[in-house]
Amino acid sequence: MLYTEIPSHRPITSLLDRIDHPQQLRLLERNQLEQVADELRQFILYAVGQSGGHFGANLGVIELTVALHYSFNTPADRLIWDVGHQAYPHKALTGRREQLVTIRAKDGLAAFPAREESEFDTFGVGHSSTAISAGLGMALARRYQKDPCEVVAIIGDGAMTAGMAFEAMNDAVAHNADLIVVLNDNDMSISQSTGGFAKHLAAIWGKGESINISDDGEAYVQPHPEWTYNSRLHSAATDAADNVFKAIGFDYFGPFDGHNVEQLAQVFEAVKKRKGPRLVHVYTKKGKGFAPAEADQIKYHAISKINAAPAASAAPKYSDVFGEWLCDEAAQDQRLLAITPAMCEGSGMVKFAQTYPERYFDVAIAEQHAVTLAAGMACEGLKPVVAIYSTFLQRGYDQLIHDVALQNLDVTFGIDRAGLVGEDGPTHAGAYDYAYMRTIPNMVIMAPKDENECRQMLHTAYLYKGPAAVRYPRGNGLGVAMQSQLTEMNIGEAEVLAELNAEQGEFISILAFGSRVQQALDAAKAFAQQHDIAVRVVNMRYVKPLDEALLSQIADSTALFVTVEEHAVMGGAGSAVNEYLAKAGIVKPMLNLGLSDEFLHQASHAQMLQLAGLDAQGIEKSVTHAWQKVIHIVS
Amino acid sequence: MLYTEIPSHRPITSLLDRIDHPQQLRLLERNQLEQVADELRQFILYAVGQSGGHFGANLGVIELTVALHYSFNTPADRLIWDVGHQAYPHKALTGRREQLVTIRAKDGLAAFPAREESEFDTFGVGHSSTAISAGLGMALARRYQKDPCEVVAIIGDGAMTAGMAFEAMNDAVAHNADLIVVLNDNDMSISQSTGGFAKHLAAIWGKGESINISDDGEAYVQPHPEWTYNSRLHSAATDAADNVFKAIGFDYFGPFDGHNVEQLAQVFEAVKKRKGPRLVHVYTKKGKGFAPAEADQIKYHAISKINAAPAASAAPKYSDVFGEWLCDEAAQDQRLLAITPAMCEGSGMVKFAQTYPERYFDVAIAEQHAVTLAAGMACEGLKPVVAIYSTFLQRGYDQLIHDVALQNLDVTFGIDRAGLVGEDGPTHAGAYDYAYMRTIPNMVIMAPKDENECRQMLHTAYLYKGPAAVRYPRGNGLGVAMQSQLTEMNIGEAEVLAELNAEQGEFISILAFGSRVQQALDAAKAFAQQHDIAVRVVNMRYVKPLDEALLSQIADSTALFVTVEEHAVMGGAGSAVNEYLAKAGIVKPMLNLGLSDEFLHQASHAQMLQLAGLDAQGIEKSVTHAWQKVIHIVS
Repeated sequence: MLYTEIPSHRPITSLLDRIDHPQQLRLLERNQLEQVADELRQFILYAVGQSGGHFGANLGVIELTVALHYSFNTPADRLIWDVGHQAYPHKALTGRREQLVTIRAKDGLAAFPAREESEFDTFGVGHSSTAISAGLGMALARRYQKDPCEVVAIIGDGAMTAGMAFEAMNDAVAHNADLIVVLNDNDMSISQSTGGFAKHLAAIWGKGESINISDDGEAYVQPHPEWTYNSRLHSAATDAADNVFKAIGFDYFGPFDGHNVEQLAQVFEAVKKRKGPRLVHVYTKKGKGFAPAEADQIKYHAISKINAAPAASAAPKYSDVFGEWLCDEAAQDQRLLAITPAMCEGSGMVKFAQTYPERYFDVAIAEQHAVTLAAGMACEGLKPVVAIYSTFLQRGYDQLIHDVALQNLDVTFGIDRAGLVGEDGPTHAGAYDYAYMRTIPNMVIMAPKDENECRQMLHTAYLYKGPAAVRYPRGNGLGVAMQSQLTEMNIGEAEVLAELNAEQGEFISILAFGSRVQQALDAAKAFAQQHDIAVRVVNMRYVKPLDEALLSQIADSTALFVTVEEHAVMGGAGSAVNEYLAKAGIVKPMLNLGLSDEFLHQASHAQMLQLAGLDAQGIEKSVTHAWQKVIHIVS
Repeated sequence: MLYTEIPSHRPITSLLDRIDHPQQLRLLERNQLEQVADELRQFILYAVGQSGGHFGANLGVIELTVALHYSFNTPADRLIWDVGHQAYPHKALTGRREQLVTIRAKDGLAAFPAREESEFDTFGVGHSSTAISAGLGMALARRYQKDPCEVVAIIGDGAMTAGMAFEAMNDAVAHNADLIVVLNDNDMSISQSTGGFAKHLAAIWGKGESINISDDGEAYVQPHPEWTYNSRLHSAATDAADNVFKAIGFDYFGPFDGHNVEQLAQVFEAVKKRKGPRLVHVYTKKGKGFAPAEADQIKYHAISKINAAPAASAAPKYSDVFGEWLCDEAAQDQRLLAITPAMCEGSGMVKFAQTYPERYFDVAIAEQHAVTLAAGMACEGLKPVVAIYSTFLQRGYDQLIHDVALQNLDVTFGIDRAGLVGEDGPTHAGAYDYAYMRTIPNMVIMAPKDENECRQMLHTAYLYKGPAAVRYPRGNGLGVAMQSQLTEMNIGEAEVLAELNAEQGEFISILAFGSRVQQALDAAKAFAQQHDIAVRVVNMRYVKPLDEALLSQIADSTALFVTVEEHAVMGGAGSAVNEYLAKAGIVKPMLNLGLSDEFLHQASHAQMLQLAGLDAQGIEKSVTHAWQKVIHIVS
């Protein structure tokens, strides 16, 4: 069935409702699976409409999920869903159907498979390309324990381009591991797939034949299934007579129609009868069965709740501020090139990609490569800008040290989704970037208080002749006026925003970083109204270099320092302030506010900030508490 | 010529001596290149005998290096040497011949290509598998600038298994970049190569034919050159009818005999006439031309100076302490599995690999995969131990957060070469691990004061049910007695080592971490003899969790805190102490000693520690200075 609307009422799903455990699915006849898949698709359409969340990828794996749970003895057999944003049907079939409407909400189901949520979620995912490594670990462990089970890693063609997946494939063959990799080939990352590997997959399609497997486990060649493969790369088919999976030692089966649930179940039954590293290649369509999503796969990667309130903020998203700046800077400097690891839309780069196609480089899901590619470009005198999420730069950490900073190369990093990320939960938190970057020599690290400062900082980072990063949060700016002109700022210069109750003499000096500046100011105002103590609020702007001169200058008049940041306290910006004060011999009480030493569960961004005590109220409360302690010590 | 001895006197190299710039090489006739190669080999044997350093890999690329500089217009054309430990012949041919005896020494030539050393060193290397990304960056930059040049990345088969190389190959095809990759296939990482990719290379060899290229740039098939390929994998040849390089869209040429310098020069001349992504596959032999090295390639990966003083320390290497512990723990716990990313020998795992082959996993150069593989094993109830250098764990940083710590999985990390690493220089420094690990929730981080504590800490980390790391330095222990018994320590419990001049009342409390504990103690003794102030020395043992109880307990009696560590001050262990003191409301002067915010040039480990002020004398000097400031403030 091809649906055209997202239902606002729970559809009737009589067969699906009988499945609270995959064992009940496995009691059905194979010819009933299509009905299960159809009901599951209707249900997913409804549920994601209620919750919002990942959409196209989930519709694309309906039949695959039904066939896997039908053919494998889950949870004794292990399924690992790479990336995991396509695990909604899996959750629905494994006892969590009626909770699915709570996905991504506070106290609801996690956005991704999570070990603490269900025994069916064998491995926590979120970042891409980990599933083959994890699955191989399980397979080798079970072999060593002489207690083998089937281990199946399901991974998309986009995720396959990340080197980690290749490392794991290589190693699986080294150990001749009993591991099944299902390549879910939909010709997409979140953006369209790119590169030699994608061309190779298109070439396999172009051969027009499949390697199938008979009921007794023997492989044979058959004509290619009827299928529409929408790759723009098809005409670029290589002349490879074989494929890379066989080349590096996997048994290869496919390609198969990933929406023919009965055939898939047959294939998996047969593949189970063999041993060693096996790859099953299936073609699926993102958004399958929902007409608008099939037509625009990028737009329907994820959706909002159908009854969501209208956007609360008219202020631009930080991602769009980045994208606008990128175009403006490119217009005035021919040396600018821009790189994204498969996040064109998320990073706000659509306009740049259209305006400057020859200066735009989508390198596929390949963060390590993205960083070193920029280093190579900088060696030739160009000025590359890498747009990357904080959580994904963790993948390029060694390259940032070894290839960029050690050679002091001129690369600018636009670090998006820094801090808490709300519904995506702990896998995607950008809570460690200050810590992992500031320890690297030569780095300059900036954090804007608002979207206009973000724009000016990006310009400043770009002009700086060395590695410089601007880190900004997920979501919208504050709604301040934007200056179209690009003005270079003084690196390392903080801004005193307010000195309240200044006549009282001794100050509480609140040193605020990035996204917490406004809340710190609000907290300070509230506090100052109720206490006879002076309060100073500083927009620190730079995590590295710190404005050491200002810190020394205000130290004498400060009775209590407070640092506030949307980042782990451990190793964070506050910690940098502590280090400087120690070095300068400034001995004063200090309160470091930030994220505590734990992984925070999903909730809305606002809820998470509140729970972390980093909204204005929480900051005020903590300052009040700390100030009482200081008075207590002094008196 | 096959040599059998390392010459102790400078050999006569009349032709080589005329080459101070590759332009002079290019003036020679092609039939003179063999003599250049022979003289260069003799010279390299002599020079490395004088300096110590990487050996086998350099002998293996003599002919390749001569052919590349002969065929390409360096430095206008760009050569990028992956890993870079094979760049000695390159340095010798590019104006640095007579300085080569100083390689790896303080103020001598760098161990690896370094941009600040020569315009021929187009990209700094040290870590593996970066060259294709960097070269692609250069090639794309030059195309955009409409100023194309030839860009050649030379990479070993071992380095090709790291996913980053695959990411770059994939992307090179996406952009149809004008890039030449030379695959230097010697069937080795530092250890023997492993995995499906190595099998595939063996299969290419097994086909018995080469794709050659004529003088007019046309490719044609010819019989395979006479060559001995020593792969243990040869019999495991796959049935791939083609190869992975062609499959993902590279033009493929080879395999060629990497020691036939005239043929290589011809090949490169011909390959230059084509465009797009091209791969030239050459077989070389590590240690080529020196009989003992050809016979034992692993032993001769690197050598010491031939006239080196006998080893100063009879104490065991930390790597060997790790290896011994690993065997002992494995003997008493069947659940232990051990993983190395291609560093069996360096990590002290030879005995374990021989004793427990079914529990030993060399995953090839693949740090990302190594960490997540361990996570997968832990999911099945086993207890994996990952042996990894501090600098290389940077490659698995995201996996440490996302796959291990977030799920609180039971993985033990033996982190070798932590701190300064001497002659290998800044690319291999392990100066950031406290910072990048301690900010991760659930991590336990230990640093032993000596080799016996290292052994007991490894045992303690292993028993801990969650991610735990023990980080230890390069080189030898202190020579303390080793306890064969494994005794679990109390996690988070520091040890007060000394309270000197205790009768003076107020203390300087020196909180020392890991490799700096002994020097801190020596410094304290020297200081205490000369000053009327009490000095306390604490072996902190744990960077996370800190012994907060002890810190609170000694705070009242402390007039000055000092932290000492072989790690960057920024974000390091001292910074963790600062954070706790702030949290606890303890307001005292603090001196954080550690590495300053710069990349340190190579020297011996002892020299570097002295320069960093982290030997006993340096610590004493810093404490004296800080104490004078405290007195000044108080008085």
